[in-house]
Amino acid sequence: MNDTASLRSRVHWWLERPDREAPGPRLLERALIALITLNVAAVILETVDGIYARWQGAFDLFEGISLAIFILEYVARLWSAPEDPRFRSHGRWMLSPVAIIDLLAILPALLVVLVPVDLRILRAFRLLRLLKLTRYSPALGMLLAVFEEEAGAFFAGFFILMVMLVLAASGAWLVEHQAQPETFGSIPAAMWWAVATLTTVGYGDVTPVTVAGKVFGAVITVLGIGMAALPAGILASGLNEQLHRRRSNMQAQFRAALADGFICDAEEREIEALRRSLGLSPGVALQIRQEVEAELHARMGRCPSCGRAVPEPWES
Amino acid sequence: MNDTASLRSRVHWWLERPDREAPGPRLLERALIALITLNVAAVILETVDGIYARWQGAFDLFEGISLAIFILEYVARLWSAPEDPRFRSHGRWMLSPVAIIDLLAILPALLVVLVPVDLRILRAFRLLRLLKLTRYSPALGMLLAVFEEEAGAFFAGFFILMVMLVLAASGAWLVEHQAQPETFGSIPAAMWWAVATLTTVGYGDVTPVTVAGKVFGAVITVLGIGMAALPAGILASGLNEQLHRRRSNMQAQFRAALADGFICDAEEREIEALRRSLGLSPGVALQIRQEVEAELHARMGRCPSCGRAVPEPWES
Amino acid sequence: MNDTASLRSRVHWWLERPDREAPGPRLLERALIALITLNVAAVILETVDGIYARWQGAFDLFEGISLAIFILEYVARLWSAPEDPRFRSHGRWMLSPVAIIDLLAILPALLVVLVPVDLRILRAFRLLRLLKLTRYSPALGMLLAVFEEEAGAFFAGFFILMVMLVLAASGAWLVEHQAQPETFGSIPAAMWWAVATLTTVGYGDVTPVTVAGKVFGAVITVLGIGMAALPAGILASGLNEQLHRRRSNMQAQFRAALADGFICDAEEREIEALRRSLGLSPGVALQIRQEVEAELHARMGRCPSCGRAVPEPWES
Amino acid sequence: MNDTASLRSRVHWWLERPDREAPGPRLLERALIALITLNVAAVILETVDGIYARWQGAFDLFEGISLAIFILEYVARLWSAPEDPRFRSHGRWMLSPVAIIDLLAILPALLVVLVPVDLRILRAFRLLRLLKLTRYSPALGMLLAVFEEEAGAFFAGFFILMVMLVLAASGAWLVEHQAQPETFGSIPAAMWWAVATLTTVGYGDVTPVTVAGKVFGAVITVLGIGMAALPAGILASGLNEQLHRRRSNMQAQFRAALADGFICDAEEREIEALRRSLGLSPGVALQIRQEVEAELHARMGRCPSCGRAVPEPWES
Repeated sequence: MNDTASLRSRVHWWLERPDREAPGPRLLERALIALITLNVAAVILETVDGIYARWQGAFDLFEGISLAIFILEYVARLWSAPEDPRFRSHGRWMLSPVAIIDLLAILPALLVVLVPVDLRILRAFRLLRLLKLTRYSPALGMLLAVFEEEAGAFFAGFFILMVMLVLAASGAWLVEHQAQPETFGSIPAAMWWAVATLTTVGYGDVTPVTVAGKVFGAVITVLGIGMAALPAGILASGLNEQLHRRRSNMQAQFRAALADGFICDAEEREIEALRRSLGLSPGVALQIRQEVEAELHARMGRCPSCGRAVPEPWES
Repeated sequence: MNDTASLRSRVHWWLERPDREAPGPRLLERALIALITLNVAAVILETVDGIYARWQGAFDLFEGISLAIFILEYVARLWSAPEDPRFRSHGRWMLSPVAIIDLLAILPALLVVLVPVDLRILRAFRLLRLLKLTRYSPALGMLLAVFEEEAGAFFAGFFILMVMLVLAASGAWLVEHQAQPETFGSIPAAMWWAVATLTTVGYGDVTPVTVAGKVFGAVITVLGIGMAALPAGILASGLNEQLHRRRSNMQAQFRAALADGFICDAEEREIEALRRSLGLSPGVALQIRQEVEAELHARMGRCPSCGRAVPEPWES
Repeated sequence: MNDTASLRSRVHWWLERPDREAPGPRLLERALIALITLNVAAVILETVDGIYARWQGAFDLFEGISLAIFILEYVARLWSAPEDPRFRSHGRWMLSPVAIIDLLAILPALLVVLVPVDLRILRAFRLLRLLKLTRYSPALGMLLAVFEEEAGAFFAGFFILMVMLVLAASGAWLVEHQAQPETFGSIPAAMWWAVATLTTVGYGDVTPVTVAGKVFGAVITVLGIGMAALPAGILASGLNEQLHRRRSNMQAQFRAALADGFICDAEEREIEALRRSLGLSPGVALQIRQEVEAELHARMGRCPSCGRAVPEPWES
Repeated sequence: MNDTASLRSRVHWWLERPDREAPGPRLLERALIALITLNVAAVILETVDGIYARWQGAFDLFEGISLAIFILEYVARLWSAPEDPRFRSHGRWMLSPVAIIDLLAILPALLVVLVPVDLRILRAFRLLRLLKLTRYSPALGMLLAVFEEEAGAFFAGFFILMVMLVLAASGAWLVEHQAQPETFGSIPAAMWWAVATLTTVGYGDVTPVTVAGKVFGAVITVLGIGMAALPAGILASGLNEQLHRRRSNMQAQFRAALADGFICDAEEREIEALRRSLGLSPGVALQIRQEVEAELHARMGRCPSCGRAVPEPWES
């Protein structure tokens, strides 16, 4: 029993990398990332008839091997989940987002054994394996944090966009449905034009042709594009805010550590740990440090009234 | 008379939710939101000939019931308006924006009884009921605040956009009106191309074909898209500014409450009230609190010269 | 001579409004703005053949009257220019941007008497009168300030855009010139596609058709749109920065005035003057004032360690 | 030997401009910039058949002279590289980015002597000379700094864009491949539509035609455009951040220099050097200086409790 526990702890160490610097788990992680990327590439290429006809055997073999590895990975992660202090039990791990993504990556391929489905359609669902990459991207966590924080603004942005779309489609239907009954014949039909216009995609497959339609289209476009760009703007400025806050977090740490004039070893380790958890590059951290040092030097190093250098507080 | 006053106060309590936590009015509000959404969906679907032909009876019945409810709602709100300290009288409520929207939601359907109008056109005006949703969106208030605050910048942005549109249309007319007399034959006609180009919609139904037209079009596009994006940029950054200010407002409250080292019950209630009035999520509030605590801890907890922990000021 | 000087000073007072509140010059300014707007509308409508054929006499009369007024305005401004402490002499005023715009507004119509030109083309140049509106827009001054401040960033943005355009056009020419010799036959021809793509206008009149062309087009589009949006982004964030700075300028003024606990009449007048010169609305100014007051109250009104209210400093 | 060393130092002084104010090297730099620009213009014009046929001799001569100058420049820079304290040796200079760009500018034209290649294709590679301009643009350095700093956010933005593109293309292929087998027949084929849609280019050469395709297209467009604009938004706000930081850097310098109430000559020189290294215009620097002075005046010049002017600290 002790052996099993020790094996489970070992599997967990290999898969979840609590010690991020260990070379073995690091290699395993990179291999899994490569496998996922290759899987996505394979699914995309399989839809090209010429390529699939020629390499069918290789594709099927690769899919078989990939599926086996992903099943093995899922089982191993499930089994070793109780080692993780965040989950403790198998059930709680199975309900976590990453576990559901892992399950979605293998389920469609397993279902085909039980239910006969069109293989072409099944293939597209194998693309869900792409989502397995989210586990390895620290920056995605930042994006999710932005979504959570700015949820109210996002909801407002999308609500306004919806109102604009409904008003644009209704107006266009009103002025164009007699001239173009096939493309503006109903509000849902006119919605296709409204989406293409307000998002500024502008395919041009459907455009107003009457004078009233063009005037209405021009006015709604000028007024509406600002609205349609709202969610994008909120997302971008929220992300910027996040980056800014992470940086000032780092700055505060440097300032606290430098308050006594130098950074001791323990402080150095603390700063390094914070830098990693915030996902900042060493170059950025160094730049922040120099700024803080320059700022402290300017404040402490010279007498404010005569401008001459004064001895540092710890020298006196 | 006392009974009527008490009934009026009761109706007001149900409709305007002064006590936001009461379950009854909350349910009524949700039911009204659902009814408005269903109305909008019904109007949109009615314009699809196949659907309307088949379900005409159901649509007409639903419209009749909805209209009755909206009339009842309008009368009830009008009658109970004097209960609201913001209005005091029936007349002042009738002139408020939300009351006008409520009236617009029922007026077109009532007019049809008096004046014979094309029912298809009338239908589109029933979409104005969509605006009734603005009453329930706290985030829209923020957007309106942004519009008010940045009014000067918006006006400048739209003025510049208008100048750009006139110059682009005139230039295109000048160089293209001989080659394409039907689409660039006058400045108003060329305006359709100018709007589609400067907003980057770019339908492609009208494009310059002469060399001079293409050169002019390329130059005006490169110079102009920055201008056309101005109102959108002002809106997005204004919204960001608003969010930022609400957050620092919350931060100031936490800092004031934490100045003595802990948050007492009265302060906790004040903070909660502020959080709700600003529309921030509990998660964001918690995060701000932790940041303020960390900041205070860093400032108070350790001696700036030796780095060792010092006793808190209220402990000495 | 004294009479002439006094008349000149009077003309200057009517035209340049040193006393912004006087009702007479204010009315004259509005009349001139209306005249310019009507002129622009007339020029636009004249290009529509049907309208011009029917109302030719009215258009010509209106143009004659407008031209006379603009000439009179130019002469009056030129004559009274020495009254303005910014110019002092006629020559310096004639070289100022507003004077050049005023001259451009009348010159084309005067030239037609001397040189026989196509009247249709001349008409377009009358649109330069639109620029006369810049004199009356305080927000445009802000935009010009942004251009001046961010000149370095703008230059960088446009340089990068130019490099992207040249690279995109050259690449597209390389892979597509054999398949579509008429639209991608030379780099200048391919530039039309590059501009439409990188600015995201995307007319669709010219698109790559070969596989290599589509792959190159997709890659350059994904990489390039960020670059093309740079000048727009710099402009929007620069404008935001300007607004922000004007607001904190106002805030500093309030803080200085409130430092002694109340705002005296002289301070009130200073603040009002600053508010006008910054172009902030009274509502925004009130909001800033309340924020500063709340902040001061929070800092001064309560003891930081016990949380109880303390007497204000000027009460003790 | 001493002569050679002195000549090498002289060549380095002419080419790398350690003394930025010397008129000779400044003129040489401008001549090289003009030569690069003319080269790019020549390559672009040569691809127009009519122009090339007529001026072939002049183009070939210009190319020969340019190539000779660029080879000479490369050799001179290589030879004088050890003078530069950043490189010290020939080898390290050859591996620096600017040296690689310089090599790419001459290599294709040299290769043609050894290997027979299509001259038209070779011509496009001569456009790489455009990149030689990066040496002279200080603003590009700022952009590269933004790329380096926001690398994590960029990677996240591009990863999300890739995921969106793959999901959009797969979904479109799923619902449209039967209706339009030639344009949505495989996921790579559908990718062309996905790129044109999510970047909002929207050529319109390929659009969904089925109802399911239009519904999917509309939903993915509304959700996706915010994602596609992420890299552009990160770039613009990162650039803004950089500008902001440079300005506050300048501000800190002014504040430090003004701490004793006036700016002495040595401080003036320091500030001027900082202004140049940050690439700020003299106008912006002056504005920052006035702001800092106003701020200090407000803080020092009047007593915070009585509002009366107090003597400056160095007067007492």
